[in-house]
Amino acid sequence: MLIIDCHGHYTTAPAAHDAFRAQQIARIKDPALPPPDPAKISDDQIRETIETHQLKLQQQRGADITIFSPRASTMAHHIGDESVSQSWTRACNDLIRRVTALYPRNFVGVCQLPQSPGVSIAHSIAELTRCVKELGFVGCNLNPDPSGGHWTAPPLTDRHWYPFYEKMVELDVPAMIHVSGSCNPNFHATGAHYLNADTTAFMQFLEGDLFKDFPALKIIIPHGGGAVPYHWGRYRGLADMLKRPPLREHVMKNVFFDTCVYHQPGIDLLVKVIDLENILFGSEMVGAVRGIDPETGQYFDDTKRYIDALPLNADDKRRIFELNARRVYPRLDALLRARGQ
Amino acid sequence: MLIIDCHGHYTTAPAAHDAFRAQQIARIKDPALPPPDPAKISDDQIRETIETHQLKLQQQRGADITIFSPRASTMAHHIGDESVSQSWTRACNDLIRRVTALYPRNFVGVCQLPQSPGVSIAHSIAELTRCVKELGFVGCNLNPDPSGGHWTAPPLTDRHWYPFYEKMVELDVPAMIHVSGSCNPNFHATGAHYLNADTTAFMQFLEGDLFKDFPALKIIIPHGGGAVPYHWGRYRGLADMLKRPPLREHVMKNVFFDTCVYHQPGIDLLVKVIDLENILFGSEMVGAVRGIDPETGQYFDDTKRYIDALPLNADDKRRIFELNARRVYPRLDALLRARGQ
Repeated sequence: MLIIDCHGHYTTAPAAHDAFRAQQIARIKDPALPPPDPAKISDDQIRETIETHQLKLQQQRGADITIFSPRASTMAHHIGDESVSQSWTRACNDLIRRVTALYPRNFVGVCQLPQSPGVSIAHSIAELTRCVKELGFVGCNLNPDPSGGHWTAPPLTDRHWYPFYEKMVELDVPAMIHVSGSCNPNFHATGAHYLNADTTAFMQFLEGDLFKDFPALKIIIPHGGGAVPYHWGRYRGLADMLKRPPLREHVMKNVFFDTCVYHQPGIDLLVKVIDLENILFGSEMVGAVRGIDPETGQYFDDTKRYIDALPLNADDKRRIFELNARRVYPRLDALLRARGQ
Repeated sequence: MLIIDCHGHYTTAPAAHDAFRAQQIARIKDPALPPPDPAKISDDQIRETIETHQLKLQQQRGADITIFSPRASTMAHHIGDESVSQSWTRACNDLIRRVTALYPRNFVGVCQLPQSPGVSIAHSIAELTRCVKELGFVGCNLNPDPSGGHWTAPPLTDRHWYPFYEKMVELDVPAMIHVSGSCNPNFHATGAHYLNADTTAFMQFLEGDLFKDFPALKIIIPHGGGAVPYHWGRYRGLADMLKRPPLREHVMKNVFFDTCVYHQPGIDLLVKVIDLENILFGSEMVGAVRGIDPETGQYFDDTKRYIDALPLNADDKRRIFELNARRVYPRLDALLRARGQ
């Protein structure tokens, strides 16, 4: 059995990458400054940041491969205009490609998109295509709120998003719905905005008919599906009240939840109420919560332990750890098969 | 043992009440229209709407008393200006008073507030005082987002809210954090906006130091605490990462969750991870989800069944059903004691 972690971010990128971003932001305030170039980063610098963090933890915790994307909180699509988002996104994705080229057996890429408030999502198609076709990426992170906490974009079921979904289906890649940092002081990023976005996206899918129009579209809702599994009765009841089909056929043929839930009772609930075929192992590491749980003595985000502890047989665990991910990310499956995995 | 339902709304108010609201809204569009008067509603009309819904269900399901407030989704603080909100709020609260006067043993009042986007919360103090001192209400519903889904107010830990908290403490009444309908198409009210607000409020309390300034302030976060119990590990970890004290002393001396979670696994999780002294029985009925769960044959919002099914002893159940509510709503406790309950 392969252990595939569907949710990892390059939160430890070399400082020079952040310095490039700082120069970008400085130039928003002072357009007289020269446009900065992406940081020159050596392979050794990448190796150091990966080997002391994500790779070390992956190996310590017993995962095999991480579906790896740029740091989510610093996508910050709300900073600057579309051209700023384009150059920052390209640099972030290129850096992920460097990681996957250095560690092809340990990391496979998922891209950030050059979204920008008020800009058509169609403008993100080129970068998605580049990342999939040229960089070998297997999916993307789609931000339902490029405004960073003001929620000014249309719902994910709006036709605004359709050109992008068409390209996703054509390329056979899924999207993880993932907001970025919040510039709204009401929303702490990892403690509120992320979970709210997960919950919001699910309810939009419940209200809409997106998957009738795109039966092949695949969506991962991270962080264990936000509030959804805990309120699964509410959602089943709302589907009924709103005269929608049962969730299993209306939403759950296309929507998957990861296991980024940082305690055993949460994972127990997830597996109890959500069909196993809709659950993908994920850790979000190195990510939102980095500490050790004093109640267990283990890292909060070592989510593999919670799955290991479930009273499931080996076949069922393999679905969560490997098979569901291979089904949801067909390009990952093809890549693994090509090397005999 | 008394069964106290801490979360009920008058979602079935007589049509004339809604007609008054419609006239109000019509006048926003056409200020030449005369200012409408609150609806004239007979006691019999109130009896009919209560006895066929909330009272019937209360008795069928075996609850004794409901902490009762105006319909949350139609508080709609974002409609019209402050004067519109003031007159609508007053009419809504007066109607609740009519119910509690007709059925003093079954319903006790909690008030809506005349909030309005951009208006100081201090302007809501007079209505809170009127409802508590003149109408005998025991608490209030405080909307953290009067904009209805645009989240333009400051966080609940901001000093903006302090004058209101001072009055709450002085009157010894708690607030339930409760948003209203959403005018942001991203957020379905009961399927996203409500739960997001619950999650958001909790994280604000975690980030802030509100309860250091107001050690006697009591806050109910409804809908089972939004996403919080399911992600309790995340919150414990975030408190640690953000160098906050442990949640039990930092937040949970002042914050309480209700049991408006519409399936057994959700309630099981709630009771497993949250201290029993922080859990108040609530149903939100007649409310968000009105149907029957095909998996159980029972109403989704008959949350008493889920508590009844818990492997808790009678003393512990009494805390959830009665004692915690009496502690969190001291004026309810006084009222019950005065009549020997």
